[in-house]
Amino acid sequence: MLKGNAIVGQSGGPTAAINATLAGVIKGAFDSEAIEVIYGAHNGVEGMLEGRISNLNEVLKSEMDFKLLASTPAAALGSCRRKLPKMGEDDAVYEKLFDFFKKNNIRYFFYIGGNDSMDTVAKVSAYAATHDYEIKVMGVPKTIDNDVVGTDHTPGYGSAAKYIATSMQEIIRDCAVYTVKAVTIVEIMGRDAGWLTVAAGLPRIINGVGPDYIYLPERDFDTEKFIEDVKAALEKHPNVVIAVSEGLRGADGKYVGESTQSGATDVFGHKYLSGTGKCLELLVKEKLGCKVRSIELNLLQRCASHCASKADIEESLMVGAAAVKNATAGVTGKMMCFTRTSDAPYTVEPTYADIDKIANQVREVPAEFINEAGNNVTDACLEYIKPFINGESEVFWENGLPKHFIIEYKG
Amino acid sequence: MLKGNAIVGQSGGPTAAINATLAGVIKGAFDSEAIEVIYGAHNGVEGMLEGRISNLNEVLKSEMDFKLLASTPAAALGSCRRKLPKMGEDDAVYEKLFDFFKKNNIRYFFYIGGNDSMDTVAKVSAYAATHDYEIKVMGVPKTIDNDVVGTDHTPGYGSAAKYIATSMQEIIRDCAVYTVKAVTIVEIMGRDAGWLTVAAGLPRIINGVGPDYIYLPERDFDTEKFIEDVKAALEKHPNVVIAVSEGLRGADGKYVGESTQSGATDVFGHKYLSGTGKCLELLVKEKLGCKVRSIELNLLQRCASHCASKADIEESLMVGAAAVKNATAGVTGKMMCFTRTSDAPYTVEPTYADIDKIANQVREVPAEFINEAGNNVTDACLEYIKPFINGESEVFWENGLPKHFIIEYKG
Repeated sequence: MLKGNAIVGQSGGPTAAINATLAGVIKGAFDSEAIEVIYGAHNGVEGMLEGRISNLNEVLKSEMDFKLLASTPAAALGSCRRKLPKMGEDDAVYEKLFDFFKKNNIRYFFYIGGNDSMDTVAKVSAYAATHDYEIKVMGVPKTIDNDVVGTDHTPGYGSAAKYIATSMQEIIRDCAVYTVKAVTIVEIMGRDAGWLTVAAGLPRIINGVGPDYIYLPERDFDTEKFIEDVKAALEKHPNVVIAVSEGLRGADGKYVGESTQSGATDVFGHKYLSGTGKCLELLVKEKLGCKVRSIELNLLQRCASHCASKADIEESLMVGAAAVKNATAGVTGKMMCFTRTSDAPYTVEPTYADIDKIANQVREVPAEFINEAGNNVTDACLEYIKPFINGESEVFWENGLPKHFIIEYKG
Repeated sequence: MLKGNAIVGQSGGPTAAINATLAGVIKGAFDSEAIEVIYGAHNGVEGMLEGRISNLNEVLKSEMDFKLLASTPAAALGSCRRKLPKMGEDDAVYEKLFDFFKKNNIRYFFYIGGNDSMDTVAKVSAYAATHDYEIKVMGVPKTIDNDVVGTDHTPGYGSAAKYIATSMQEIIRDCAVYTVKAVTIVEIMGRDAGWLTVAAGLPRIINGVGPDYIYLPERDFDTEKFIEDVKAALEKHPNVVIAVSEGLRGADGKYVGESTQSGATDVFGHKYLSGTGKCLELLVKEKLGCKVRSIELNLLQRCASHCASKADIEESLMVGAAAVKNATAGVTGKMMCFTRTSDAPYTVEPTYADIDKIANQVREVPAEFINEAGNNVTDACLEYIKPFINGESEVFWENGLPKHFIIEYKG
């Protein structure tokens, strides 16, 4: 068994569960005989290159610290968007990185992040293999988007889905109070895949209440058909609620935002790029003349830890610890995944996969999960994602607000 | 003691606590010897005029029903925006209303709502006094805006404040992960008073983390000073977060939205009215050129029952029940209020006040609660509102989502 120190970093956009994965990795390292000290790199690989690291053995001191960390949103170690150069292009970066590893006897490198982070894992692992320095490198994916191939779902998705479903249910209740015809359009994150928008449908199978329509980027968006849909819904009841992905595109491949706002300029004369929801709001106002508003769920989708899914947080902890177990057993250059082992009862196991089979691909919502009209999702789709929002993760409220656990770089 | 039936209705915009007040009124009626049946009017006074009512004695059957109702957002009985005519102008409406009262032996009328609802309470009470029909009419205010005079605060404000403070803390965590300079502007509801925006400051006194600036409509907004403020904050740290009221106005009395977007048109050539946050985002982009985004907290501020304040929900229940107690003791034509009886420990008592002393006034954030520079709030201000977000109201999660209690009109 390779013995030495470990380093863990976070990269890419925050989620409500990325710190749970971090807590899982740290716990795994504490429990491992192979790892003496686990360091945290501030702002991902940047922190390793600039020497901004913290000794996490001195930071996490109690079971409560782990619990608080797991319930803290965003990236407690900070993040970065740095992509490493191709090997052979600028080896100075790798040399600097490996000097850092050697100096600190780093033998395990855990990277929690998105596509760029998995790319880093693959490159660092490949560099190590050809440069006579033994280090095990493991990636743990995180993305609210759930668009990674090779895994049943991604850590972070369940909490985002729970926030979206909970908020959508509350918005529908709010919209239902008046008798005047009104359309409410809720814009949900997701540029290339509609998984987050799908979650807006969950209240339907759970509580019998849901948005009238759900439009995903997996289907070409037809504005005329959309207006017909809205009209039909307004015939049935006055309060129409619609969920749309930010990434909706027409058959011409252009984003709804681009194609419907060619004339819009801001006060400074710049082309005004408003979101998909706002554009559709203007369209409904113009075509149907009824009361209409749009709502962007925005950042809260990825950072609302106060409404995190217990299933998601527990799985994120588990996959973090499993990354350490696999690395110390000799696995390197892989990405951790979830394999669903049973639907009823729902069970998953942490597994791992080759990064090159996963990178630069997008796992879309499959065609059979979308209804024929392309304006909603099927019950089977919702049943598939339902286990991800199961249970409420513990939140440590004090004086009316959640307590968070922050890992500051102390220099 | 006047004996007979009662009716309760809800009016104006929803809150996370308006159903708790409803539950309090119903419970008060169930417990009262004076009230035989309590009816619910669907869509407020409209339901009374159109005969759309439900017998609530048959709807709320268990302690659990009351708990679920109190944790349901928006108005379970539906709402309306109807204002009654002045007495003498169109008495047909009053005649219709009183025919309905007589036919159903309605002797108690409880109206939960905003300014228009209190106006209805005053008018119905005055009409009764001159038309030989004894009925006790009581108003219970609800508004997330907290801008009602005569009361320490309003039911519904505490839950909105808790949601805003919780979300603001999460947004700040999210924004802190990168090292690149970026400005995040969070637009919070409040056209005439800044109470909701004030709540964004709560994480500062509770967890030592808060937005860099808080701008309220109580102070004239100066865009040049604002840009200077943002510049100064960016000198100190890369992640600047700012809370702004939607109702910010310049010294000329124009909303920030109006004055900075004269040139903006939408794709249909209409004047494009974007929000205050979006306008300030464009301004920062133009003047400072750094990464900037704006976030509108939007409807969730008033309907996020999953994050309701226990103090708010309990006080809302209490004030509903107290309205019934006062009415059956003979009080009529009044609005229920809270009187703060102690700061430490925080205690309030339900009281009531004359509506004519309250109507058409706005309780602003007092000058001494705003810092000298006009770009933040004082600790005293935050200490004052802190008790309102205390505790977490019970949410009845099932299969991953909150259960709600809906009162449907069955015809």
